[in-house]
Amino acid sequence: MEGNLAGSGCLERVDGGLTDYGIEMMQEMNRLGILVDLSHVGYQTSRDAVQFSSKPVAVTHGNSLSRVNHKRNKPDDLLKAIADKGGVIGATIFPPFLKEGGVKADLSDFVAMIDYMVNLIGIDHVGVETDFTEGYGREFFVKILTGNSKRGPKMDMSFLPVANPKGLESARDFPNVTAALLEHGYAERDVRKITGENFLALFREVWQ
Amino acid sequence: MEGNLAGSGCLERVDGGLTDYGIEMMQEMNRLGILVDLSHVGYQTSRDAVQFSSKPVAVTHGNSLSRVNHKRNKPDDLLKAIADKGGVIGATIFPPFLKEGGVKADLSDFVAMIDYMVNLIGIDHVGVETDFTEGYGREFFVKILTGNSKRGPKMDMSFLPVANPKGLESARDFPNVTAALLEHGYAERDVRKITGENFLALFREVWQ
Repeated sequence: MEGNLAGSGCLERVDGGLTDYGIEMMQEMNRLGILVDLSHVGYQTSRDAVQFSSKPVAVTHGNSLSRVNHKRNKPDDLLKAIADKGGVIGATIFPPFLKEGGVKADLSDFVAMIDYMVNLIGIDHVGVETDFTEGYGREFFVKILTGNSKRGPKMDMSFLPVANPKGLESARDFPNVTAALLEHGYAERDVRKITGENFLALFREVWQ
Repeated sequence: MEGNLAGSGCLERVDGGLTDYGIEMMQEMNRLGILVDLSHVGYQTSRDAVQFSSKPVAVTHGNSLSRVNHKRNKPDDLLKAIADKGGVIGATIFPPFLKEGGVKADLSDFVAMIDYMVNLIGIDHVGVETDFTEGYGREFFVKILTGNSKRGPKMDMSFLPVANPKGLESARDFPNVTAALLEHGYAERDVRKITGENFLALFREVWQ
């Protein structure tokens, strides 16, 4: 989530976009069949990645910024650009990306986020992703949110301890997502797309 | 002249400014008494460096962009900002930075560049620097202008082979600079500043 030689992370003060090296690196990833994942990447660098990549790209885990204001979430124009290129966004269960004002979110917030993004970018471009961090505590988050800095974490740590949404406490609750989507009115075919087939199709295209 | 973890080089496609890590690195350089040299740095990253550094910074070798349009030269507002902070610009003999439209430059072009910068930012903020590359040929320049790229040099190589300005072919010609500045009308005191004392004063302040 910091800057690196390829571009800027989403927690950086400024984001100039993909560096020259970043463009070459991404084109080499395209050539080798490596999926470009913009989940932790800054806005301008992400826009550049969509522009310069010859293959679809993903946000494997991230939500809509217009619904939930968090630096890890993505503006709608970026979500649209990724979808226009054939990419997939993995709607994410991690509570701070799912609901503002604290960590309390539940299964209905997750379904609402999926629903918002499906309406925005289409049924073929939304997946689900957990970002579960079971067993990881403060030390882990301090480490990944501090990076190279000597100043400590670059994000307010008040989201700790992570309490997964009610109804989505762990991987064993995945059938609840399927049930909630069906109950919300999605056809079985669409539920299959959201819960796996969209990402599988993307992997097939990029990895081949 | 490429981007790195601290910020953007002057040959980069885009320049977002100092990264978060770059700010911390520069402040650590300030603490340790290491001079920040913006010679190969991009414009916005340089402006940020001037803003965030607690000590004067330098362009040890570089000229005015408004006089000679070259990516290694610096816009006048940047030169002024560096001077306002107590920094020094080393006017540079390297021919492509000294005269447009080819490599033919002479001692009078160097004096004219010094004179322009002295009038712009004051007698206390201009020094002289050679960027002499005697003994280095095409291979060297290809290497430093290619960096991490697999595409080859990021700069038009038509400036090769480097022909140092007439009257400034090598280090033994330095007395010619002194003579030319005196002849141009500079007082001896000012010639001493330009040819050494300004940089010495900067080093004393930053290195202490």
